[in-house]
Amino acid sequence: MIRLKFSIELRYSVLQSGADFIFSIHAAQNAQQTVVDEALVLSQPLLHNLYTDPETHTRYLRLKADAGPLTVLYSATVDLNHVTAQPEQIAEVGVAALPGHVLPYLYPSRYCQSDRLVRLAIKEFGHLWQGYSRVQAIRDWVQNRITFQPNSSNGNTTAVDTLVEEVGVCRDFAHLMIALCRAVNIPARFATGIDYGASPSLGPTDFHAYVEAYLNNRWYLFDPSGVAIPMGFLRFGTGRDAADAAFATIFGNVQGSAPVIQIEAVPNAQGQLVLPQHVAYALSTDGL
Amino acid sequence: MIRLKFSIELRYSVLQSGADFIFSIHAAQNAQQTVVDEALVLSQPLLHNLYTDPETHTRYLRLKADAGPLTVLYSATVDLNHVTAQPEQIAEVGVAALPGHVLPYLYPSRYCQSDRLVRLAIKEFGHLWQGYSRVQAIRDWVQNRITFQPNSSNGNTTAVDTLVEEVGVCRDFAHLMIALCRAVNIPARFATGIDYGASPSLGPTDFHAYVEAYLNNRWYLFDPSGVAIPMGFLRFGTGRDAADAAFATIFGNVQGSAPVIQIEAVPNAQGQLVLPQHVAYALSTDGL
Amino acid sequence: MIRLKFSIELRYSVLQSGADFIFSIHAAQNAQQTVVDEALVLSQPLLHNLYTDPETHTRYLRLKADAGPLTVLYSATVDLNHVTAQPEQIAEVGVAALPGHVLPYLYPSRYCQSDRLVRLAIKEFGHLWQGYSRVQAIRDWVQNRITFQPNSSNGNTTAVDTLVEEVGVCRDFAHLMIALCRAVNIPARFATGIDYGASPSLGPTDFHAYVEAYLNNRWYLFDPSGVAIPMGFLRFGTGRDAADAAFATIFGNVQGSAPVIQIEAVPNAQGQLVLPQHVAYALSTDGL
Amino acid sequence: MIRLKFSIELRYSVLQSGADFIFSIHAAQNAQQTVVDEALVLSQPLLHNLYTDPETHTRYLRLKADAGPLTVLYSATVDLNHVTAQPEQIAEVGVAALPGHVLPYLYPSRYCQSDRLVRLAIKEFGHLWQGYSRVQAIRDWVQNRITFQPNSSNGNTTAVDTLVEEVGVCRDFAHLMIALCRAVNIPARFATGIDYGASPSLGPTDFHAYVEAYLNNRWYLFDPSGVAIPMGFLRFGTGRDAADAAFATIFGNVQGSAPVIQIEAVPNAQGQLVLPQHVAYALSTDGL
Repeated sequence: MIRLKFSIELRYSVLQSGADFIFSIHAAQNAQQTVVDEALVLSQPLLHNLYTDPETHTRYLRLKADAGPLTVLYSATVDLNHVTAQPEQIAEVGVAALPGHVLPYLYPSRYCQSDRLVRLAIKEFGHLWQGYSRVQAIRDWVQNRITFQPNSSNGNTTAVDTLVEEVGVCRDFAHLMIALCRAVNIPARFATGIDYGASPSLGPTDFHAYVEAYLNNRWYLFDPSGVAIPMGFLRFGTGRDAADAAFATIFGNVQGSAPVIQIEAVPNAQGQLVLPQHVAYALSTDGL
Repeated sequence: MIRLKFSIELRYSVLQSGADFIFSIHAAQNAQQTVVDEALVLSQPLLHNLYTDPETHTRYLRLKADAGPLTVLYSATVDLNHVTAQPEQIAEVGVAALPGHVLPYLYPSRYCQSDRLVRLAIKEFGHLWQGYSRVQAIRDWVQNRITFQPNSSNGNTTAVDTLVEEVGVCRDFAHLMIALCRAVNIPARFATGIDYGASPSLGPTDFHAYVEAYLNNRWYLFDPSGVAIPMGFLRFGTGRDAADAAFATIFGNVQGSAPVIQIEAVPNAQGQLVLPQHVAYALSTDGL
Repeated sequence: MIRLKFSIELRYSVLQSGADFIFSIHAAQNAQQTVVDEALVLSQPLLHNLYTDPETHTRYLRLKADAGPLTVLYSATVDLNHVTAQPEQIAEVGVAALPGHVLPYLYPSRYCQSDRLVRLAIKEFGHLWQGYSRVQAIRDWVQNRITFQPNSSNGNTTAVDTLVEEVGVCRDFAHLMIALCRAVNIPARFATGIDYGASPSLGPTDFHAYVEAYLNNRWYLFDPSGVAIPMGFLRFGTGRDAADAAFATIFGNVQGSAPVIQIEAVPNAQGQLVLPQHVAYALSTDGL
Repeated sequence: MIRLKFSIELRYSVLQSGADFIFSIHAAQNAQQTVVDEALVLSQPLLHNLYTDPETHTRYLRLKADAGPLTVLYSATVDLNHVTAQPEQIAEVGVAALPGHVLPYLYPSRYCQSDRLVRLAIKEFGHLWQGYSRVQAIRDWVQNRITFQPNSSNGNTTAVDTLVEEVGVCRDFAHLMIALCRAVNIPARFATGIDYGASPSLGPTDFHAYVEAYLNNRWYLFDPSGVAIPMGFLRFGTGRDAADAAFATIFGNVQGSAPVIQIEAVPNAQGQLVLPQHVAYALSTDGL
C-alpha cells in the first residue's frame, strides 16, 4: 500500500465577477484509491459544489467566483492499492464483450482522431498478440517516435499533429497513444494526475497526463511520455481526451499563474514507507 | 399524441466471420417517447444483445455476424408526447447550475471543435438574450450560411470544415450548430432519427441528424438543415457528435448498401391521426 | 532516342458562355524533349493563346469558351532524349550553391507542407548520403508506406493527410515525396505526364503525376507511386504541386468527363522502335 | 517623391558552422522604387551573393556563416515614386487577359487555400463590381472580422485558421485577404516591408506583411491589418505567401533575436520632406 500526500495551489485573478470554474483536482475515490484525508481552502467565501461522475468517479469542484484574487488550495493524503497482474495474462476484450459504458472510449474524440489512423495502426500493430503487450508496443512506438519538448504544442494540438510533427508534451503523447489504441479497437482513455518521480530537469512538479487502456475488464495504466513513475499516479479525472479532463475549466475573464504542486510518499497506516517505482508488471487502479 | 410507424432495413455482405456490429436503430424510450410495439428480424440466427445507456436511454444492438449476407430489419410503432413551451419562456441554464451529467456537452468533440469558434460565436451571438431565441439565431445562421448538397462531405468533415467550405449534409449542419452553441456555453448534442417530412427531391427517406440544446433543464429540438419536420423526429441515439451516434458502427470486413427506411404517422390510441407539422413553439422529448 | 505518339481528348459541357480554360496538355519543349509534330483541334472556333513559361518551358493553352459542348483534341509525336547518369555520381547541391530560380522548390506549398515534416524527415533520411540514393530512399519509403487506391483522396488532400491516412493516388504519392525532399533541403517539384506502362488493371490510360528532384544541377525523374515506367514520362507541366500543374484549370460553370488518352512508342527517326523500360540508372529531361 | 531611410539589424548565434542564410532585406529596385544608396555590413568576413529574381525583382542575399555571432546590418535610402489612380478607374483583368507570369498568383498556396474559400468568397464578394473597390471590400471584410493580437499565431497558421479563429498578426491578415482575392479570380500576392507609421503601442518598428492585388495591369497595395501607412511601404520581397517571402530563411542550427529596425522619411532630392499618409486613391509600386 502506497500512501501519497500532496498539495495543489492554484492562483487566479478574476477580472469580472461571476466567473465559473470547474476543477478536477480532487483525488478520485474507488476501491483502489482511498482518500485518507483531504482539505480544500478557498480564499473567497464561496458556495461550491462537488459533483461526482457516477461512472468514472471523477469529482468536479464547481464554483462561481467574485472579482479579485482567488486562491484554491487542495491537499490530501491518498492510499493507492494497485491491482497488479502479469502482462502475459492480460488479454484484450473483444468488441462484442465490452461493457456498454466502455464503448465511448472506442470512438474518436476531439484530440484523438483514431478514425484517421486505422491503416497505420493496423499495419504497425495489427499482427501482434491482442493483449497487454500490444498496448506496450503502442506505448513504446509513441515514446520512441515523439520527442518530449516543453511548450512545443498548444490547446489546438491533436494526435494527428503530434504524429506528423513528432514533438509534444505529456498530453500529446497520451493523445497519440489513445488514438492508436482505439484504431485497433482497444478502448483507451485520458487520465490526469501528478508527474510523480519526474526529473527536476523538466521543471517543478506539475500535473501529468497519462493513458488507461481497457484490458481483461480493467483499466491499466500506461505512461507514453515516460517521464514519470506510473505507480505514483493518483488519478484526478479521466475522459475521452484533454477536452474532458482539464484540471480547471474556466468560463469568464480570468488570469491564472502556474500551479504549485507538491507530492511525496509518506508512511502508510502500517507505518511503512513504500516508494513508487518502475515495475515490469501491470498496474490498475480502476475496474469499472 | 403523435404515433409514428417505421421500418428500417439494412443489408450487408459480411466478408469475414466474426464482424462486430453496434447498431443504434432502436427508438429510445423515455417519458416522451413510448414504444408501442417493435420487432427485430435478423437473417442470421445470431445471439445479440441490447444495451441501454443509463444516462441517454439510447439502445445499442450488438451482435457478431457470420460470413455471408446479413439483413437487419427493425420496425416499430412509437408514440411521441412532446413537452412544448413558448420560446420566450425558455432561458439558458448558467454553467454553475448545469447538472453534472450535462457538462460533457459543453466541451469540444471530434467533429465539433467549439474551442476554435469562441471568438466568432461571441461576436455573432454573445450579445443576444440567453435563451431559446439565441439557439434559434445560431440555427438560422447555420442554415443561411451553409448550402445543403448531397455527397459534399465525408466521414472526416468537421464543423470547422463546414464553416470554411459552406456546404454539407444534415450531419454537417448539426456539427456546426453544436460547435457554435458550445462556444457560447450552451450544452448541445447530436441526435439521430429519420428525416420525417423531407422533400422527395432529396432522395428516399433516410436517417437524419439534428441537434438538441439544453435549455431550462430540458433538451430542446432544432433542425439546422431545415429539410425535415422536427415534430416528426423520433430519436434513436444521442451523443457528443456523429462519432458517438452512428446508426451502425462496424468492426470487420463488411460491405453495406443504402438503408431502406419507411416512416408514416398512423392513428394513435385514441384513433386520431396527428400529423407532425412545423410549429412556432419549442419541442422537447427529453428532460434528463 | 524514344519516340512517343499520343493523343488526349477532353470533352466538356460549357453551361455558361465565357468560361475560361487554362490547359497544360502540350508537351514541354527543351533540349531533352523535342516535339516532332503536334496538332490541336477545338470543336468551337475559338481564339486561343499558348503561353510558354520562360523558366519551366511549360506551355499553357488558354481560351474562353462559348456555351455548349467543347472538345479539345491534342495529339503529338515527341522525342525523348534522356540525360542519364549513375546514381552514385549524382550528389545533392548545397543550399548555398542552388541557382536562385530553384529556391522556390525548397519551400512548402499548398499540398506539400514540408515545414511540418522536418523532424520526421531528418530522423528517417538525415543520416543518409546526400545524393540520388537519398532521394531513392525517400521514394521507397513513400511507396512502401502508402497504398495506391483509386478515388481515395480529393482536391483538398495534402501530403500531411497522405502521411496520416497512408492511402492515395499518384498525385498524393508525389506530394508526400516532394514534402519529404524539401524537408531535408532537396528541391523537388511536381510534374505531370501520362502513365506510360501502367497496368490496365488501374483503368484506362490516364494523366500521371510524378516527381522531379534537383540533384547535381539537373532535375531527375522519380515515380513514387511506382505504377508506371519513368522512361516513358513526357512532361506537360511542372510546378510546386498540383495547385500549379493541373492539366486543366477551369473558371466558370462547366461539366467535364474523363479524359481519353492514348500513348504508344513508335519508330524513331532512325526507324528504331525503342520501348521505355525500367532502368537502374538515373533519368533527367530537364537541366534548367 | 517620398524618400525613406531605414536600417535593419539582425543578430544571430550560429551554433554550427556552415549554416545557410537566405535574406530578403534589400529593397527591391524597379521603376517606382529606386535605391539611392545602400550598405551592407556583415560581422563575419563571408562571401555572399545577391540574387535578383528576374520576374519580381526581389533581391536575395545568400551566405554561409561560420559558428559564432553573426550580425547583419543593412541600411538604405530609397525613393518611392508611386503610380496612383482613382479607384473607380481600376478594373480587374479577366482571366483570359492575364499575363502568363501572373497566373501563379491565382492558385492556392501553402498558407492561402483559396480553393476552400470559393463559396464563401462568391457569396460575399461575387456580386460586386469587378475592380479596385471589390478588393477594398475584401480588405475591409478581413479587417473588420479579424482581431490584431501579437503572438496569436505561429508558423503553421493558415488563412483557413485565421478565418476560423478570427485573430492574428499582419501576415495572417494578408494570407486571408490573398486567399479571398484568389477565390474570386483576382491575382494576389504577399509582400514584405516595414510597418511605417504603425502605432508605438504595437511595439518597436518591425517587418510588415501586406498584400498586392493585380488590377488593370498593375500590382496595387493593400494593408488588411490596417496598422500602418501603405504609402510608406517599400518592398523587400514578394511571393505567393509567407513561405516564399520570409525576411530570413535559415538552414542550420542558429538562434536569433528580434530584429532592430528604424525607418524615417527624409528630404528628397528636391529637398522636400514628403511624409507618407493615408490617402483615398490607389497606390502601386510595381507594374510587371
